[in-house]
Amino acid sequence: MKKFMNNPKDFVDEMLEGILAAHPDKLKCVNDDLRSIVTATIKKGKVGIATGGGSGHLPLFLGYVGDGMLDACSVGGVFQSPGADQMFEVTKAIDSGAGVLYIYGNYGGDIMNFDMAAEMADMEDIKVLQVVAGDDVASSKKGEEQKRRGVAGIFFIYKIAGACADSMASIEEVKRVADKVCANVRTMGIALSPCVVPEVGNPSFTIGADEMEIGMGIHGEPGIERSTLKSSDEIVEQVLNAIIEDLPYEQDDEVAVLMNGLGATPKEELYIMYRKVNIMLKEKGIKVFHVYVGEFATSMEMAGASVTLLKLDDELKEYLSKPAYTPFFEQVQL
Amino acid sequence: MKKFMNNPKDFVDEMLEGILAAHPDKLKCVNDDLRSIVTATIKKGKVGIATGGGSGHLPLFLGYVGDGMLDACSVGGVFQSPGADQMFEVTKAIDSGAGVLYIYGNYGGDIMNFDMAAEMADMEDIKVLQVVAGDDVASSKKGEEQKRRGVAGIFFIYKIAGACADSMASIEEVKRVADKVCANVRTMGIALSPCVVPEVGNPSFTIGADEMEIGMGIHGEPGIERSTLKSSDEIVEQVLNAIIEDLPYEQDDEVAVLMNGLGATPKEELYIMYRKVNIMLKEKGIKVFHVYVGEFATSMEMAGASVTLLKLDDELKEYLSKPAYTPFFEQVQL
Repeated sequence: MKKFMNNPKDFVDEMLEGILAAHPDKLKCVNDDLRSIVTATIKKGKVGIATGGGSGHLPLFLGYVGDGMLDACSVGGVFQSPGADQMFEVTKAIDSGAGVLYIYGNYGGDIMNFDMAAEMADMEDIKVLQVVAGDDVASSKKGEEQKRRGVAGIFFIYKIAGACADSMASIEEVKRVADKVCANVRTMGIALSPCVVPEVGNPSFTIGADEMEIGMGIHGEPGIERSTLKSSDEIVEQVLNAIIEDLPYEQDDEVAVLMNGLGATPKEELYIMYRKVNIMLKEKGIKVFHVYVGEFATSMEMAGASVTLLKLDDELKEYLSKPAYTPFFEQVQL
Repeated sequence: MKKFMNNPKDFVDEMLEGILAAHPDKLKCVNDDLRSIVTATIKKGKVGIATGGGSGHLPLFLGYVGDGMLDACSVGGVFQSPGADQMFEVTKAIDSGAGVLYIYGNYGGDIMNFDMAAEMADMEDIKVLQVVAGDDVASSKKGEEQKRRGVAGIFFIYKIAGACADSMASIEEVKRVADKVCANVRTMGIALSPCVVPEVGNPSFTIGADEMEIGMGIHGEPGIERSTLKSSDEIVEQVLNAIIEDLPYEQDDEVAVLMNGLGATPKEELYIMYRKVNIMLKEKGIKVFHVYVGEFATSMEMAGASVTLLKLDDELKEYLSKPAYTPFFEQVQL
């Protein structure tokens, strides 16, 4: 295990200390609990948006707390759900009367803990609604979308719900818009190598020196096909067709594209992949509104990538285009 | 060699096609030559800034072409200097009468080709001045700074010279400010694993499963010490002390910090390292003005990191704080 770290058991807390030290004007913790992070600039009267999840996925989840996106994040151990207590603490910290929307990925531990936090909030008369992201097409078949895991596409839910909340919309309205993103976002990933959870010390799975796995989850959950490594164009063709076939698309539909690196894969390769995505979308008559390329949802040092398409309408385009400033993501008005 | 690519010989051109397809409103190529990239929005009367270098280092070099930073980049093969012809072509494309400043790293091939391009420009009455970056403390000893290699610290030269040029300063003034950054920026890196140049197919160097190398260059140039992997805190202590000792620092001096990942190293680990940087700077009475954490100068999928300190004065702080919008780097006013 080759990592820049001290004692593996301090991995998450020392990372959080580093993040708070690097961005003191943007993030702070609640009740001196490093695992309960909120934005330094809470906007009065705005719907609060909280997320949470395991560590090891930066910029997920914490990295999107900031102006125009999220207000709070509860932080778990590496690949572990945070506790309901942390979720409840950040909920109280960011509620200013308009209620708090939880947005998180579809994983058992997270659902259980966020449900518990929502009950605690209810007892203190804080209105909480929830949106559970499940964009990974490979994780369950069409017709069973509610079983799908949340992966990189959650970025679009954060971005658009954040902009909607920033317009001082009601919590019902922010949830409606977030649900619309969920209904229109699809992702599929490809893993080339595993990562190592610091306190475990061994690779999260084994894969041959010439193998790839399509559809693997961001914690190493099984995918849909293991094969010898194909060319980038062949991989993109398989993945993008699967994503597009999962939604009805019509001529001249517009999309935002997210080319996400899982950790060790360089941007050079993400752009080689995007080249083919662009060619295919043109052929299919689907227009590209905006492209994001980089690391948006990682599995530490895993080599691999995912492709996400978000089908847009005028409302989603408007919110996607709004500026956002977080320690890990900055965007001027598109 | 596990990479998302097609034919290795197309690696760079397909990457460039992907970049131009993803950012058509921001970047374009000159004379249909993919290796000659300029900003889509050239500002009349402004000093042009051009850079260039080998591929495989994204966001270097190309990624900093955009508003508030660079105007052009000539692109070489992986770890290879671009040709003088490309440099000359972009020089002509961005000159609008105020002259063109070349800023690039201290490598033999780049120097030779930029010198040649400057001569060609001179024959067409385009004024060209040059700034050669050499911030890698490990690559040559104190007193022989002119032999040092350029690494991640060139980001600060781009950022500050770009903001100065944007203020419509003369080329002499932009060069003066860029030279001031050079004189005050210091970097040292640590490599944990090699990368693979696509057309070569083998790792660029070998290193034991429990080894690290301090001071290795971004093309695998030898460092100053190979040892068993130390703790993150020990590594940061050694590297940061070497950087600080290389410049005179006084109580209450201010710095900008760049924690740069070389490719496969996750942001989690960069923040664990920054935690210790922050502690040490506090102990030494050096104030942190701003911190950048992420991948700013990479070696494809190499695992490793570098630490850069830029000693600031009021002028450098002012230019560093200006906004910049490129496809790979966005910053609002600090």
